[in-house]
Amino acid sequence: MSLSSRLAIRIPELDQAAMETARQRQNRLTKPPGSLGRLEELSIQVAGITGQPQPTVERKVIVVMAGDHGVTAEGVSAYPAKVTQQMVLNFLRGGAAINVIARQVGAKVVVVDMGVASDLNPQPELVDRKVAAGTANMALGPAMSVEQAETALAVGMEIAADLAGEGMHLIGTGEMGIGNTTASSAITAALTGAPVTEVVGRGTGVDAVGFARKIATVQQALSVNRPEADDPIDVLAKVGGFEIAGLAGLILGSASARIPVVIDGFITGAAALVAARLEPRSTGYMIASHQSVEIGHQIILEALGLSPLFKLDLCLGEGTGAALAMPIIEAAARLLREMATFASAGVTDKS
Amino acid sequence: MSLSSRLAIRIPELDQAAMETARQRQNRLTKPPGSLGRLEELSIQVAGITGQPQPTVERKVIVVMAGDHGVTAEGVSAYPAKVTQQMVLNFLRGGAAINVIARQVGAKVVVVDMGVASDLNPQPELVDRKVAAGTANMALGPAMSVEQAETALAVGMEIAADLAGEGMHLIGTGEMGIGNTTASSAITAALTGAPVTEVVGRGTGVDAVGFARKIATVQQALSVNRPEADDPIDVLAKVGGFEIAGLAGLILGSASARIPVVIDGFITGAAALVAARLEPRSTGYMIASHQSVEIGHQIILEALGLSPLFKLDLCLGEGTGAALAMPIIEAAARLLREMATFASAGVTDKS
Repeated sequence: MSLSSRLAIRIPELDQAAMETARQRQNRLTKPPGSLGRLEELSIQVAGITGQPQPTVERKVIVVMAGDHGVTAEGVSAYPAKVTQQMVLNFLRGGAAINVIARQVGAKVVVVDMGVASDLNPQPELVDRKVAAGTANMALGPAMSVEQAETALAVGMEIAADLAGEGMHLIGTGEMGIGNTTASSAITAALTGAPVTEVVGRGTGVDAVGFARKIATVQQALSVNRPEADDPIDVLAKVGGFEIAGLAGLILGSASARIPVVIDGFITGAAALVAARLEPRSTGYMIASHQSVEIGHQIILEALGLSPLFKLDLCLGEGTGAALAMPIIEAAARLLREMATFASAGVTDKS
Repeated sequence: MSLSSRLAIRIPELDQAAMETARQRQNRLTKPPGSLGRLEELSIQVAGITGQPQPTVERKVIVVMAGDHGVTAEGVSAYPAKVTQQMVLNFLRGGAAINVIARQVGAKVVVVDMGVASDLNPQPELVDRKVAAGTANMALGPAMSVEQAETALAVGMEIAADLAGEGMHLIGTGEMGIGNTTASSAITAALTGAPVTEVVGRGTGVDAVGFARKIATVQQALSVNRPEADDPIDVLAKVGGFEIAGLAGLILGSASARIPVVIDGFITGAAALVAARLEPRSTGYMIASHQSVEIGHQIILEALGLSPLFKLDLCLGEGTGAALAMPIIEAAARLLREMATFASAGVTDKS
């Protein structure tokens, strides 16, 4: 039984008829054909995803999944592990960067505890789907069991299904987890075969000594665990994280529900890579928001065949890049729907 | 008497104290220092422009200036000249791309007739500042007189002053004028010394024969008029356009009023280049939104020392790129103002 059938992932093909109708309409709008560049492509992609020739992008959500990483014991991060929990509380109080941008762009923020190490007191706004209190230290053995990885994937898929039920038009991916760039580097190296030194960056700003430790730790995690490059769940379990697995599930679930899903930076990119390896068709549902300064992100984007909308030298995560991309995606859909045509506006078309 | 004193341009220096306060606050916000990349830089720039350590970017406007170009007689454009007027009416009815994006991002659109050839019937929403009914054909002689160029510059400065009086926080530049990429190519070649073949693009999509004519026409305009590279008003008058001159004035006026001004694509870039040559200090007030597919735009951005926020393969003009950049600039200001600090959120700072 294949992995994807175990998880009951069914991702439809993009709707070619809706795409063709959208493409033809783009050429009748009052502008030179192609002059809106990536926005035209985005509108056609969203038409194909949703099956609607004039899709709507209004109801937007950023799902921020949080989890802790046992590998922080190796001293790979500039911040102590307890910051994961503290930032979750900051998200719930609306004080983090993602809250500010989401408020501005009109996106809801859903914060999910996928595996924060400490006990978060009951928080009415927190979605508690904790798989375990942080992963094990992947430098010494598997970060989690295969069952835990599958549970986390299933949680992400369920959350996507719930958001589809709420009528969401656009789902953005976000994350928080001290140590999760280390896990993402290991996932990227394992799935793409890229050398560890080309996928490890400074994360939240680790110093030179910590950076060297981070590279050595990823190398150790890979040699201790020997993840199978052609088995994405094995990779997730051995060197992943609960929030990363949840995000991979969220991406697959969004695609299953025909909802475009916005990839943020390096960590959500690693989740997208896992999703793509589980179901290659899911990449058609992904929109890459930005290219992070984390060096491994470019390797992920190339592996996914995605071209980011912008490069603003971000490396915060939380879904900040995804949220910043939302107005661009919304504009693409609105232009297709709201612009006058040459005929309706009485504008002379190209001679 | 210098050009800038004739036009009474006074542009203050950026407020270093406000910038330093903003910079320090960025480092106390709940994120790794620098992790918001260009957004942090933008917030500090806007602090310096406005003199406010926590600036507000809420009231936004796109000024779309329109003008016709006698050089269209040479067959340099894919669209007939009457499209300028038709698109102005489209702007006033809200059917153009700029209207759609401006509505979405909450920006007002101000449409200014700087020199449309045809008589636009009185339109309540149109700002009628027509300098003349289109420029003369620059392939045969100067596009306009020096007096006309100065009048158009002054109009732009007045409009900026009016918008400052309305309390605008952010001014975006936009334009419409069949033939105006040809004029912008000539301006760019004249002011930067770049070869004509490196600054002429396809505009609205001229075919191969028209493209060759466009290059030859720009070369002819430059050899007939011999604009002085060190005299931006001479360049404007000989190979410019009324909307381009108006936009240069708008940019200078925005800077004078300490309002950040968003540069759109190639044509507004040519206007920005004129503004920068009249008053180099104005570049500190400019924010480059996107890099257009028009090849000359990159040369302009390099000459201005500006780095665009994104590259979405746009070449429409109208201010569409500027409008798309507005949510990013607004986000930068909101993040600085609204994010929690490590202290206020009880988050542990970097060890």
